[in-house]
Order: sequence, then structure tokens, then C-alpha cells
Amino acid sequence: MAGSTFGNIFKITTFGESHGAGVGVIVDGCPAGLLLDASDIQKDLDRRKPGQSKFTTQRKEDDEVEILSGVFEGKTLGTPICLLIRNTSQRSKDYGAIKDTYRPGHADFGFDAKYGFRDYRGGGRSSGRETAARVAAGAIAKKALKELGINVFAYTSSVSSIECDLANFDLNEVSNNMLYMPDAQAAKKASELVEEMRKKGDSVGGSVTLIAKGMPAGVGEPVFDKLDAKLSQAIMSVGAVKAVEIGDGIKASLSCGSQNNDNFYMNDGKVSVKTNHAGGILGGISNGADIVLKAYFKPTPSIYTEQSTVNNKGEDVNIKIEGRHDPIIVPRAVVVVENMAAIVLFDGLLMNATSSMDKIKKLY
Amino acid sequence: MAGSTFGNIFKITTFGESHGAGVGVIVDGCPAGLLLDASDIQKDLDRRKPGQSKFTTQRKEDDEVEILSGVFEGKTLGTPICLLIRNTSQRSKDYGAIKDTYRPGHADFGFDAKYGFRDYRGGGRSSGRETAARVAAGAIAKKALKELGINVFAYTSSVSSIECDLANFDLNEVSNNMLYMPDAQAAKKASELVEEMRKKGDSVGGSVTLIAKGMPAGVGEPVFDKLDAKLSQAIMSVGAVKAVEIGDGIKASLSCGSQNNDNFYMNDGKVSVKTNHAGGILGGISNGADIVLKAYFKPTPSIYTEQSTVNNKGEDVNIKIEGRHDPIIVPRAVVVVENMAAIVLFDGLLMNATSSMDKIKKLY
Amino acid sequence: MAGSTFGNIFKITTFGESHGAGVGVIVDGCPAGLLLDASDIQKDLDRRKPGQSKFTTQRKEDDEVEILSGVFEGKTLGTPICLLIRNTSQRSKDYGAIKDTYRPGHADFGFDAKYGFRDYRGGGRSSGRETAARVAAGAIAKKALKELGINVFAYTSSVSSIECDLANFDLNEVSNNMLYMPDAQAAKKASELVEEMRKKGDSVGGSVTLIAKGMPAGVGEPVFDKLDAKLSQAIMSVGAVKAVEIGDGIKASLSCGSQNNDNFYMNDGKVSVKTNHAGGILGGISNGADIVLKAYFKPTPSIYTEQSTVNNKGEDVNIKIEGRHDPIIVPRAVVVVENMAAIVLFDGLLMNATSSMDKIKKLY
Amino acid sequence: MAGSTFGNIFKITTFGESHGAGVGVIVDGCPAGLLLDASDIQKDLDRRKPGQSKFTTQRKEDDEVEILSGVFEGKTLGTPICLLIRNTSQRSKDYGAIKDTYRPGHADFGFDAKYGFRDYRGGGRSSGRETAARVAAGAIAKKALKELGINVFAYTSSVSSIECDLANFDLNEVSNNMLYMPDAQAAKKASELVEEMRKKGDSVGGSVTLIAKGMPAGVGEPVFDKLDAKLSQAIMSVGAVKAVEIGDGIKASLSCGSQNNDNFYMNDGKVSVKTNHAGGILGGISNGADIVLKAYFKPTPSIYTEQSTVNNKGEDVNIKIEGRHDPIIVPRAVVVVENMAAIVLFDGLLMNATSSMDKIKKLY
Repeated sequence: MAGSTFGNIFKITTFGESHGAGVGVIVDGCPAGLLLDASDIQKDLDRRKPGQSKFTTQRKEDDEVEILSGVFEGKTLGTPICLLIRNTSQRSKDYGAIKDTYRPGHADFGFDAKYGFRDYRGGGRSSGRETAARVAAGAIAKKALKELGINVFAYTSSVSSIECDLANFDLNEVSNNMLYMPDAQAAKKASELVEEMRKKGDSVGGSVTLIAKGMPAGVGEPVFDKLDAKLSQAIMSVGAVKAVEIGDGIKASLSCGSQNNDNFYMNDGKVSVKTNHAGGILGGISNGADIVLKAYFKPTPSIYTEQSTVNNKGEDVNIKIEGRHDPIIVPRAVVVVENMAAIVLFDGLLMNATSSMDKIKKLY
Repeated sequence: MAGSTFGNIFKITTFGESHGAGVGVIVDGCPAGLLLDASDIQKDLDRRKPGQSKFTTQRKEDDEVEILSGVFEGKTLGTPICLLIRNTSQRSKDYGAIKDTYRPGHADFGFDAKYGFRDYRGGGRSSGRETAARVAAGAIAKKALKELGINVFAYTSSVSSIECDLANFDLNEVSNNMLYMPDAQAAKKASELVEEMRKKGDSVGGSVTLIAKGMPAGVGEPVFDKLDAKLSQAIMSVGAVKAVEIGDGIKASLSCGSQNNDNFYMNDGKVSVKTNHAGGILGGISNGADIVLKAYFKPTPSIYTEQSTVNNKGEDVNIKIEGRHDPIIVPRAVVVVENMAAIVLFDGLLMNATSSMDKIKKLY
Repeated sequence: MAGSTFGNIFKITTFGESHGAGVGVIVDGCPAGLLLDASDIQKDLDRRKPGQSKFTTQRKEDDEVEILSGVFEGKTLGTPICLLIRNTSQRSKDYGAIKDTYRPGHADFGFDAKYGFRDYRGGGRSSGRETAARVAAGAIAKKALKELGINVFAYTSSVSSIECDLANFDLNEVSNNMLYMPDAQAAKKASELVEEMRKKGDSVGGSVTLIAKGMPAGVGEPVFDKLDAKLSQAIMSVGAVKAVEIGDGIKASLSCGSQNNDNFYMNDGKVSVKTNHAGGILGGISNGADIVLKAYFKPTPSIYTEQSTVNNKGEDVNIKIEGRHDPIIVPRAVVVVENMAAIVLFDGLLMNATSSMDKIKKLY
Repeated sequence: MAGSTFGNIFKITTFGESHGAGVGVIVDGCPAGLLLDASDIQKDLDRRKPGQSKFTTQRKEDDEVEILSGVFEGKTLGTPICLLIRNTSQRSKDYGAIKDTYRPGHADFGFDAKYGFRDYRGGGRSSGRETAARVAAGAIAKKALKELGINVFAYTSSVSSIECDLANFDLNEVSNNMLYMPDAQAAKKASELVEEMRKKGDSVGGSVTLIAKGMPAGVGEPVFDKLDAKLSQAIMSVGAVKAVEIGDGIKASLSCGSQNNDNFYMNDGKVSVKTNHAGGILGGISNGADIVLKAYFKPTPSIYTEQSTVNNKGEDVNIKIEGRHDPIIVPRAVVVVENMAAIVLFDGLLMNATSSMDKIKKLY
């Protein structure tokens, strides 16, 4: 029961290890007739790929996607779309240090405990590389959402304790700095911090904010598949995420009801909210306001300083991890959060298609 | 696709509206041979039920559980266990105020947008009452975990900005105060705050901490069904939860790798960690340390002050909510968080049963 | 992983043992706004219940259904519908003979091998009584199909080797005879045979034909969830079914392509078929013709003659089964086949709601 | 909800169109530590591939499998195994005849009705080529079953009305004739018939028998996921199958209880059956006897004679299908039935791993 499938109707199943032949995904349940070509997917893969700046792995990878099925004459067929991204830069090398020794902060020990065996040539299945497949699948969901007038985007909202300041907030700035922050000043400070940590061989964490505009009200299922519950699963399943907030999140727990409730009012004939503490979701169902979510990432566990740990013979040992690693994972994770959220939202829209006999009667 | 089912092998499906005949659950996939009787479930329902103190709804409800199937001669049969809790205190009354008007902070509007129709006699399916079914199902999971040496428990860790102080931490204290806080002093201060808010007709939020001791390493699936991802879905699907943290959560995003990594060491022949910033989960898989999670709740949206909102004719109106409501939902949610986590953990243990041919060969 | 759930969107989960408190079902995913009251379900339960004739168990059971949730003011809410049918005629008695001994043709041994334990007071979960829950759920699907202009019905097509003769075929006759055969002469001959077997303490089998009229073309998923594949699972999962045919079934394997292909032609502006060897399904997808399926039932395994078998101590023993048993199960199974098929067809219609962006755009 | 996934724990998801880049499958949930290399899969693909004899498509295809993930150092990792089989012989040609016109007996019309659009260059997703992916996945299940002492095999049991005669039955003969029949004489007669039909441009059907030896008792879930129900879905989901029988199948419906019941007896300390009318399954659960199933195939719908049909403009037209087609699909389907059954049986064994607390306690 390896849990590599996500989604109820728009269903994705990923595969691949970091140092095997490649990673990829099958998207089953994408409706027919969506205009799609490889470039729609490639541009998101490029946002995620390593080697873009000194803050990301210097490993050069092309991350070129091949569409193996499900698209014909530029449109989706309604049948499974298989996307393959070959691994190109696996170097044959001596994995000695990490072969038998469990890296702190990594899943190595867990994999051995679970399977009795693992691909020791890197993170294998637990590598961040697995998210390339998610990004590819999510690019399709995002394209479908756009056709329905829904726009999903994300950005880095903090690096360590450096947060974006609303006074300087400018979405256009996101593509201007290597950290994808919508605040030029914060980005500058954060860059200095990351550079300092990189030189020390250490790493930092941070957070990503996700916003979806244009979601219709009524999407999300009432109990276990609440829109916020599925978003939480989707985002928490991204490696290194340690917390998820919806709307005001923790701040809501410090507020009182009379302040935290978002009052409804009619705005241009549409039910709207005066504030959006809830992040667009009440009782697990969208209320038509912006969906707002925040994901917090731990610092990259691969650091250059020597660490104490144990090996697979049950001995206390020290480990020094070689290779090139990101001193911060957050900027590369922005598109991962964005696309995972898109999958949840589009899947929610599809699930909602059968919520009433009135809808069914429009179709038959 | 109403999403009322949760779990992969230990699978629960809940039903019921707050003002219908009752609420309940089918637990499918519980292994045969677990000792179980109604009292195992009843004692957890009693921890959740209203009318226990002035901080909980004064509505008296017995919340008595009936086992309709799946148990024979005091043991589970391996077949579906259906548990029914009848609603006893529905009063026939005039629902005028909330029948046509959307309560701020509630799912009323979302339900109408989704289904075109709703049970207006209260929260219906979105009522906190639905969690009684989860508590009942989770009591079974918790019993099974206990047989395997795993102990799951939760407590209130904060009320508004009043947090438990580690210096005063005493688990025995939890059952001594109405807020289920393991710190007598914090509980006293918090009680005063809640009482003050109750008198004002307002409400407050807070947080719940969940700990599981004794989880073996290797449980959790590598990608979308990571143990922390499923825990997040489970907990975020509880009404009023707005944030979930695993281990250090947000604090991890402020740390650096050299501090946040938990170093492994051999302790009495067992791979252990010197710190537990990760909350017992790495790469979605348990590492044998305590599982630690924190859930943050918004203030109860039902407050007594008049609020502006809209009605189902699309008119701006004011609403004043009658009836009795908890000024804080957190203490009653403690057992909900505890039992939802138990479901995820036990399901994870079951899913893990087929992770290797070595395990399969032990069984056949 | 007890497999008590069926369906993808219109999802049913059954529970209950033959001699426990009752049997029942949760229907999750039924669209909101369907007119429904208990009598819609009760009338199908009455077609299935024992004690109707000398060919069915004389055990009197009321099989009265209670709707516990999901229906409000005479309409479905879109939330889970829980239906409960209490067992009323369990007699406390000595189950000695079947408690420790495995009845030939029954699942007793399989249950012990699987669970190490079973409810020995009858079939338990493997009892035909479990089908009452399916019938109840299917009555809802059938009602929804009717609103969409789709009519599903079934009848007994053979009893042992006595088949209905097309020359005498009259659907009105079905409700005139205790065997539900649409051929009065065949019904008479069959009744004599069954009576003869009943007197001998033996039993016979037979077959049921299912027809659905009005299915639109395009329903069914291309690969594993083909409409015929799901129908086969649904029907074969009914106890005592040993074969399922779609359309001409086995006869198709004896034909040649030029005869077996159903030629399309335009009929009143609609794509139609001149023949219907395929039973309305090509490549797993409906083609707009009648859906036709046949299910074959083995003779009731509970017979009165003494049989050799083994007990749970691993000893060769003889068994003589007491109690009242149907000499033929087929007539009571007619409504089970009908309603299981209705569930598959309605679920197929719902699944098909998201097959193209054109459909989605009609809804958003 | 495209239904391209099958299995509960050993879960396969196929992709690919007949004339796209390739077909393939992700197997998620295969336990770690199974010895596996490409040749294990290739040898089954070779049994299915076209161009082997004059009775199979003359299109030469290599059907070479590439393992993209999930296998490391010759053993399965427990992570998803992705298998890719590139399409090599797509010829760019004029598809005029079938582009706009619905072939009788094919899913063309259904696809257009469903998706509003299809890959008209052949069967696309509904092509028999899709079964290559199933065969590849099933080869893994079969290998795992063999490690557990379970042997699954299939053969052609009839071609049109020519059946194998038990008097001549010889399993070694299966690999000696192009029709895979275990009776040399029947194979000779059948070959003559098929050759005659091929010359006429017509086609014939037939049947395949599947046997599994060594299945332990207790496998299969009691209600909807009965072993026979899942086998039926699996087999009926193979294109061209129109009927499935378990054990005696239709013959059981003609028998009486006293003859059809299989009496248990102790044989060498093992509960056994004196006869096997049930085909090894009672109440959906294996009883330790051979699993026996028969699948009936319609004649290949692609024939060379001109046929009347309609086109996608709603006009009555004639069609003459070009290209090379098998005059009988049965021999190539033998390995498809065998491997689909293997998937169900291995998945059933895995599902059964959590049926009792006793089993769980062996693992933790």
C-alpha cells in the first residue's frame, strides 16, 4: 500500500527514484478537450529545476518532460496522461558514506526499517526530485483551472525569520529575485542570510504562501475530504513541510469569535466576505473568497558539517555528507506548493460536479 | 463524491446530521479478535459530550453508543463494525433565524452553494456533532494500538494566548480541570478568560497537542500517504482547526539545519534520536521517536452578539444566534484529535504489513 | 481491508450479520435533491424478504427500513444516507450442529481460515441476509435512474434446465408467479420441480436476466472500470452467483464476427444498433442500446440430507442442517440483481459527469 | 474518473494508446525484496505479442519492456515500478476510413459519445494493445505468487464450438500449437477452422480456462471484494470477454444442492474437498482447492467484409476495415487472463495480511 496516488477524480500516481532511469506521473481522470502541450508543463518544471542559482543545487539537470500518452492533436483525450522526466545527471560514484549510514533529518533509517532495503544512491524515492512529477501533473490542473477562470499562485513569504513586509508587497518582484519573494528588501536581506549559511555549510528554512483567486463557492466535501483537509494532506506530503496554516491559521486561535468571523455581505450581486480570516474555506467548503494557505519548511537536512548518527549495523558513527545541496529548499518548493494546491482545487471542482440532481440533469 | 470515508485499511465512514435520527460510523477493516465492548467506546464519547461544564453546551445529551454489527462474544469479527449514537435532545423549535440566513463563520452558505438545499435545523452535517462518530471509531483504533504497546493521548496546550508552561507540566492535571490543560496555573487563568468571554457572548480559540508513544519505526508511506500528511488531513478535517504543526512546526522554519536535524544514536540497542524536532516522522515515515503534533482551533463561530450577514435571497441582513453554544470548543476537541490520530496511526501500521516479501512470508 | 464498500461516486458500505442487531448500509455520494422516502426502499425490501411463499424461508421477518440520515423534508441532502434494517426473528437456540462444523457449500471454513473466529449463529456476514442492505441502497439508485429516464428490471429466466420460452414471454406475468418468471407455462413447470426438490430436502439453481432501458451512450470507463466489468463484479459478489454473461455471453464465443457485430444505423436521428448481441456495451462503454446481463445461481447449499464434512478440530464428521431454507434462492435474488445493476449504472452516469471540459463548463 | 487503476494493495495503473508513444503501467504496492528483472516480464510480453503466427496480427512489434523505477540491484524496492513498452510500428498512414466512421463491434462510437473526441488512429485506449501493460504488471504478481508456492496458468479451452476433450488433455501440448490448446486433436481442428475464417475475412471466438494451484484457504473479502467478484471484474475488463464462469459456472445452475455441494474431508491433515464444483471459492473466500475460472471471448470485431454503420455526422454509411487483424483473439488473450488473475490473487493475499490481530502481532 505504497500511497503513490493522490486525488479522487483528477488522480495522479507518481513513480521514480532520484538516481534511477527517471521520475514521472500518470494523470488519470483529466477531462477530455483541454488544450495541452509539453511547453505548458516544461515551464513549471523549469521553475523547479536545480542549477538556477547559487542557492539551488548546482547539479545541472534538464528535466525535460515527454508526454507518453493521453494527448492527441494538442488536446487531452480523457485517458491517462503519462509524463516522463528522465534523470540525466546521475554520476556513477562511490556512495560509501551514505550507503550504510543514516543521514540525520533524512528518511534513510525509516526506509530500511520499512522495506529492509533501499536505493542508497541518494534520497531514492524520498528525494526532493520526486516533486518534479507532482509539478508536471499540477501544471495540467493549473491549466484547466485557468480555463475556468481560477488563478493559483505562490511565493516565498519568509526565509528563516525574515518575512515579507506588506508595505513593500509587489507580486511582480517575485520573478526578480532568486528567492521568489514579493518584497525586494526582504529578498535582499534573505539572500545575505542564505549566502552566509551556505558558506558555513549550514541551511535555513522558510515559508510559502499560496493564493487561489476565482474559486466558486460550494467546492469541497463536508467531512474528511474538506477542501482544507485535502490541501493540508497535499502540502504536508511535500518533503520538509512541517506546518500548514489555512487563512489566519495559528493567529485565529488567538482571536475571539467576534473578530475572527468573516461577515457576509452582498457585493455586486455576489455573496462576499468583508474580511477573509478563514482563507476562503468554511466547514471545508469554499465560500467564494480567495483560498489562502501557508506552508512552513524546515531547513535542508543535508548540511556539510560533520554529524553524529548510526549506521545499519547499529553502531554510533559520524557522517559527513558530500555533494551539492541547496542551503534553502523554499524557492524551489514554491511551484511545488502551487501545483499541489492546483491539483486539490481542480479535483474538488470535479468532485463537486455530482453534488445535486440539478447538476446531473444539466448533463443528461 | 461526498468524502465521508477515511482510512485505507482501517476505514471509517460516518453518517448523520445534528438534528436527524442520530450520528454513527461504520468501521470496516478492523482486524478480527480485538477485545471490544461498548464501554470502550462510551468512555471516550463521555469525554466529548456536551453538558459537562459551564464551558460546554448545556444541551444534555446521553450520546449512548449501540454496536450494531461486527462484534461477537466480546471480540471483533473482522467484519464492519457499525456504531449508532441516537440524537436525543432535538427540540422541535422555530429555526427561523438560521433557516434562511447564513451564519458568519459557518458552512451554511457553502452547503447551499453546493447542494442547493440543506438541513437548516443546526449545523446538519457540518455540526461538531459529527465528531462523535469519529470519536467512537477512534476508540477502537486506540484500543488496538494499546494492544500493540502504543499509547496515544492529547491535551489542551493553549487557550487564546495562554499557554501551558513546561515548568508546571503535569499530565495528571489534565483530568483535574475543565479545560484539560496539563498545567494547573495556566488552566486557572484560562478558565477566567473563557468565563469572561462567555459572559460577553463572545468566544475564544486555542490549541491541542497530540503525542503517541511506542510507535515502531518504518510506518507511513513515502509519498502522498506520508504519516504526517495523513495526520494533517485527519486533523484539519476536524471542524474549526486552522493550522497543524508536526514536531517543532513553524519553529523549524526559523531554525538552521545544524540545529534542527535530530542526531541518531544507539540507546539500549535501539536506534534513537537525541532531540525530537521532527516529531517522530522523517520523509513521512516514523523513526521510532514520539509522534508529536499540534492542532490550532479558531474561536467558536456561534456567538451571541448580533452580526451582519446575508440571507438566501441575497439580501444584507443582521443575525442573532439563539441557543446554547460553547464559548470555547477546544476542551471537547481534545478526544477528537486524539482519536483521529489513533485512526491514522493504526491504519499506517496495517498498511505497513505488506511492505516487504519478508513480512508476507511470515504470514503464508 | 474488508471490502464492504462498492461504487466510485455513488458509494455504498454495508454492515451486519444475520443474527446480530441488524443489517444496513451507508450510501455516500447520492446527489442532493432526489425525492426519497422510506416507502421507495421498503417496496424493494418486500420483494426480497423471506416468508412470502413456500419456496422461500418461512422465517417471518419484517425487514422494516429506517432512514437514519441524509434525507430531510422528503429529499436527499447530498450527505450520507444510512439505512438500518433490524433483525427481528433471531431465536436464541442451540447452534451446536453448525457451531463447530463446516457446512459444505458454505463459507464457514473460509471465515475460520481467514479470521480464526466467526459468528456461528448462521451465515453471519456471509448470509444472504446481507443482500437486504444492497437492495435498500439500490432502490435509491433505481429511483435516481428513473428520474433520468432509465428503467432497470430483472426476472427469473431459468430454473434448473427450465427456461422461459420467448414465445410465451410476458413481463406482466412476472408478478403473477412465485418464481418471478415472465412465462406462465415455464413458471408452472418450474414450480413443480422446486416443490419436488423441496420435499426431497434438496435444492435447485437457475438464472436471472437483467435489462436496463434508456441508458445514454458514453457511460462506462475504458479500462478496469468498464461498465461490464463493474456489472460483473457487482453481480458476482452476490452470494451463490457462479457465472455472468453480458449480451449473448457464451453464445458470442460460438459465433463469427460477421454475425456477432451489431451494425449501427440512424434511427430517428439517433445512433442505434440493428441487433444487440453486445448487450449494449462495447469496449466497456454503453452504446445506447439496452443493457442486457444474465446471472447464474447455484442451488442453495443448505439442504436437509445428511452430508459428510469436517469440523474445526480437523475431524471427518457428518452434518445435518436444521432450520428453514429456501429450496431455490433465485426468486428472492431477482431484486438483488436488479438493484446491484442499478448501483453500477447510476455510478457510471455520475463518473461520466467529468469526462470532458465541455461538461465541466456547463456546471461552472 | 477514468478507471485506469486496479487492485487494492498491489495496485496497477495503466496508460497508453495503440498509436501514441507507448503503453505502460505503474505497479504501486509491490512488496520490497522480490527478485525481479526485465526478462521476467519480457517472456510474458512475448507470449502476447503480435506477429507470432498467421493467426495473429502480422504487425511486427518488439514489445520490449523498460523498467523505469522501483527495482534496484535486481530486487523490488517497495516503491512504484513503472514499466514502459514503446510503440514501434505505428505507420503514418491515411486513417480516412475509420477516422470519422464507427466500426461495428468497436468502442469508437462510445468514445465519441463520452469524450466528444478520440484518437482515431486505431483503437487508441480501447485497443487490445492496452493489455500489454496488464501482462507486464501481472508478470510481477505471478512471480511473487510463485515465491509463495502458488502457480497460475491458463490455456485455450475452446475455439468456436471446438472444445478440448478431457481424454486428450495434456498441458505440455499447450506450447506445441499456435492456439495454446492442451489437446492436439482439438488444436488441429480449430486451426483448420480459424484458417478457413481468415481466408473468408471473418473471425471466430472461443474460451480460456484459468487455474491457480496452491492458494491457501481464507483469501478474499466477504462482500463486494469477494475473490470471485474481483476475478470477474478483472477478466471482464479484458476487451472482447462476454462471459465469466467460476468453477462449474452455468452448469451449477442446472445441478441440485446435493450434487453441487463439495464435501469437505481431511486429507493428509489438510481440509480438502472431494469435488471442486465451486472452483475453489465459497462465499467469496478461497477454500484451499484449485481456483478455476473460464472466460469467453467474442470473435474479433475487425473483419474484412464490408459492413453497414454510421459516421460521426450521423449518416448511414458502409465501412471496409483495412490493415491486418487477428482472425481470433483467444490465443493472445491466454496470458492476459493468466496475468490479470495473478494480480487479483496476489492482491487478495496482501489484503488478507491484516484480517486478524493475531497476524498483526506476528509483524509488530
